[in-house]
Amino acid sequence: MGAGAAGLGLTGAEGGIEIAHFFLVLTCILIAAKLFGELAERIGQPAVLGELVAGVLLGASALGIVPAEGTEAALIHALAELGVLLLLFEIGLETDLREMFRVGPASLSVACVGVVLPFALGYVFWRYVPHAMSGGAINTAAIFLGATLTATSVGITARVLSDLGRMNTQEARVIIGAAVIDDVLGLVILSVVSTIAAGAAISALGVLRTLTVAVGFLVVAVLIGRFAMPRLFDLVVRMRVRYVLLVYSVAFALGLAALADLAGSALIIGSFAAGLILSGTNQFDTIEHEVRPVAAIFTPIFFVSVGSSVNLSLLNPADPAARSTLAIAGVITLLAILGKLATGWAAPWERFRRVVVGVGMVPRGEVGLIFADIGRRAGVLSEEMFGVVLLMVMATTFVAPPALKALFGRGAE
Amino acid sequence: MGAGAAGLGLTGAEGGIEIAHFFLVLTCILIAAKLFGELAERIGQPAVLGELVAGVLLGASALGIVPAEGTEAALIHALAELGVLLLLFEIGLETDLREMFRVGPASLSVACVGVVLPFALGYVFWRYVPHAMSGGAINTAAIFLGATLTATSVGITARVLSDLGRMNTQEARVIIGAAVIDDVLGLVILSVVSTIAAGAAISALGVLRTLTVAVGFLVVAVLIGRFAMPRLFDLVVRMRVRYVLLVYSVAFALGLAALADLAGSALIIGSFAAGLILSGTNQFDTIEHEVRPVAAIFTPIFFVSVGSSVNLSLLNPADPAARSTLAIAGVITLLAILGKLATGWAAPWERFRRVVVGVGMVPRGEVGLIFADIGRRAGVLSEEMFGVVLLMVMATTFVAPPALKALFGRGAE
Repeated sequence: MGAGAAGLGLTGAEGGIEIAHFFLVLTCILIAAKLFGELAERIGQPAVLGELVAGVLLGASALGIVPAEGTEAALIHALAELGVLLLLFEIGLETDLREMFRVGPASLSVACVGVVLPFALGYVFWRYVPHAMSGGAINTAAIFLGATLTATSVGITARVLSDLGRMNTQEARVIIGAAVIDDVLGLVILSVVSTIAAGAAISALGVLRTLTVAVGFLVVAVLIGRFAMPRLFDLVVRMRVRYVLLVYSVAFALGLAALADLAGSALIIGSFAAGLILSGTNQFDTIEHEVRPVAAIFTPIFFVSVGSSVNLSLLNPADPAARSTLAIAGVITLLAILGKLATGWAAPWERFRRVVVGVGMVPRGEVGLIFADIGRRAGVLSEEMFGVVLLMVMATTFVAPPALKALFGRGAE
Repeated sequence: MGAGAAGLGLTGAEGGIEIAHFFLVLTCILIAAKLFGELAERIGQPAVLGELVAGVLLGASALGIVPAEGTEAALIHALAELGVLLLLFEIGLETDLREMFRVGPASLSVACVGVVLPFALGYVFWRYVPHAMSGGAINTAAIFLGATLTATSVGITARVLSDLGRMNTQEARVIIGAAVIDDVLGLVILSVVSTIAAGAAISALGVLRTLTVAVGFLVVAVLIGRFAMPRLFDLVVRMRVRYVLLVYSVAFALGLAALADLAGSALIIGSFAAGLILSGTNQFDTIEHEVRPVAAIFTPIFFVSVGSSVNLSLLNPADPAARSTLAIAGVITLLAILGKLATGWAAPWERFRRVVVGVGMVPRGEVGLIFADIGRRAGVLSEEMFGVVLLMVMATTFVAPPALKALFGRGAE
C-alpha cells in the first residue's frame, strides 16, 4: 500500500507519471500505427513500414508525442518490449522445429557471413579510405562502426514475412534461423565492444564464455522444454479457470525471456524459444489463436517505438553538416546492404531464392542502435558518427520491407 | 533515441528498472493469479478471491515480490490499471444500454443510500461512541472515516458476476449501474475530502461543479458516441490491416478513459462508457470476442495488485496494538457491511433479490484505500485509523465474492 494507493483508481498521478496522459499517448500510438499501416498497405507496402513511419512522426524529432526519456518513456519501452517478445513468441509457435534443424547449417552460414562481411567492409572503409570524418581514435571507431553493421533485426523481417503470409517458405526459415543466430552472435559482439568501450583488453576466454552461455541456454531450454512442457500443459488444460492456457503460455514466454536475459542470453531469444517449445504441446492451436489478439495490440507499439528513435534533423539537406553526414551515411548504408545481401549466397548447398534471404537479413532495426549508443556514451563514436550509424540503421530498416514484398510478389523461383 | 536506446533490445536496464526482473515479476503475478484462482474455484469460491489472496502473498508484507514503490511499481500499476480498464470496457460491451436505463432509477436510489447510510453510520460511531481511538481532531477524522465507507468497487463485483455468468440478471444491472453512479459520487466525495484535508472550506459551488462534470462527461460521451461510433466503425471494418477492429476498440477505450480523467471524471467511467458505446456498433460481437483474451491477461494483474496492498502485520493477534485495531475494525466492518446491505431495499418499486444487490455493493476494493491514503498523508487519519480502514476494506472485499456466489447458488427468487 502506502505510496501506491493514491494512484490506484480515481486520481491518477503515480510514480512520477500521469496515468491519463500515458493512456492518451498509448491511444495515439495505436491509432497512428494502424492508420499508417493501412496507408502503407494501400500503396502496396507492408504494414510494418507504415508503423515505423508513424513512429517517426510521433517521435521526439517531429510531433514529440512518444517521449524519449523519463518514467513514461520507460513504460512505453516496457510495452514495446512486451510487443516484440509476443511477436517472437508467436513466430516461435508457428515455427516447425524439425524444418528449422534441417536448414540449421544454412542459417548458421548465412548468419556468420552476415556478421563477418559487413564488419570487414565497415572496418576497412573507416580505417583505410580517407573521408570527411577521418582522424581521432580511428581504430576503435572503425571497430565500433563495423560492429553496428553486423546486427540483424529479426523483428522487422519476421513481421514482414508474417504479414505476407510467407512464414512457411524455405527462405523464411533460413532468415529467421539466421536472425536468431545473429542475435546470439550479437551478444558476443556486444560484450566485446563493451569491453573496448570500457578501455579494457578483450579476453578470448570471456568471448567464448559469452558464446557458450548464449547458445547453451537456447539448446538446454528447448531440449528440456520440449520434453517437459507438453506434459505440464496436459495438466494445465485440466484447470477450470478461464483462459488459463493463454495466461500460462504468456507467463512462460515472459518468464523464459527473463531467464534468458539473466543467464546472459537475450530476452527475445527466450521468448522465441518459448514459442518453439510450446509448438510441441497438444494445445498449440488454441494458444496460437488466443495469443494473436494480445500480440496484435502490443506489436505495433514496438515498431512505433523503433520509428520514434529516428532523428529527422539528420535528414535536412539544407544543413551543410547534415549534407556531409548524409554523404558518408550513403556509403556506409551501401556497404551495410551489400554485406548482408551477399549472405544469400553463403549456403550454396541449400535451394532457396538467394536474393530474398539476402534482403531479409538487411534491416538493422534497434539492435544496431544499441551498439552505436554504447559507443557514443563511451565517447568512442562522435555525434557525427552516431548520426551516420543512425541513418544507416534507418535506411536499412526502411528499405527491406518494400524490397521483400516486391520480391515475394514476383512469385517463387 | 538517446537515453532510450541502450535498453531497447539486448541488454535491458532502462529508466531505472531492469526489464528482465520486471518480466519475472509479471510471470510470478500471472502464475500465482491463475493458480490461486483455480484453488478458489476448487473449494467453491470465485476465482477473483484466489487472485486477491495471490496478491496478498506476493505483496510487500509477505513475499515482497510485487514492489510497493519505485519505477517497477509504477509499471505494474499501469498494467493493473490497463487490466481494470479492459474489464470495465468488456462489461460495458456486454451491457444492454436500454436495460440499464430501465433500472436507472433503482440504481440511482441504491447508490445514494449506499453513500449516505454508511457515511452516517461511520461518522456517528466515530464521533459519538466512546472507543479506544477517541480524541484528537475527532470531527474531521469522523468525516474521513465516513467517506471511506461510501466507496463501492465495481471491479470486484463485476468480475464475480461475470465469473458466475450472471451479468444478464436484473440484480447485476442494478449493481453495476449503482456502482458506476457510486464512482461518480466518489469523485464528488474525493473533492470534498481533499478540500477538508487541505484545511480549506467546502464550497457548494465546487461540489456542484465536480458532480456536473462527472455526470456530464458520461452523458455527453454516450450520447455522441452512440450516434457517431457505429458509423465510424463501419468505416474501420473496411480497413485491411490485421486486427484493426480490436486495436481501434482498445484505443477508443483507453482514449475515452484518459479523456474522462482529464475532464475531471474517472478513468474506469471512461472505459465503461466506451464499452457501452461500442456495444451499439455492428461489429460488437467480433470486438468482444477479440478483447476477451487481452483482458484475460491484464485483469488478474489488477486483482493481484489490489491484494498486494494488504498489510498482513495488521492481522497478527499476538500483537496488543493489532488486537485493539482489530476490535475497532470489526465494528467498522460491521457498519460498512450493514450500510451497504441495506441498499438492497432502497428501490422497493423494482423487483429483484434485495440481499443480492446489498451484498454486491459491499466490497470497497481500491477506492476506499484512496480516500484513506489522502487522509493519512494530510495527517487527518492516524496510522491506527488507517489500519482500521485497511482492515475494513480487506474484509468487505474478501467477504463479498463468496457471499455472492453462495446467494446465486441458491437460485432465483
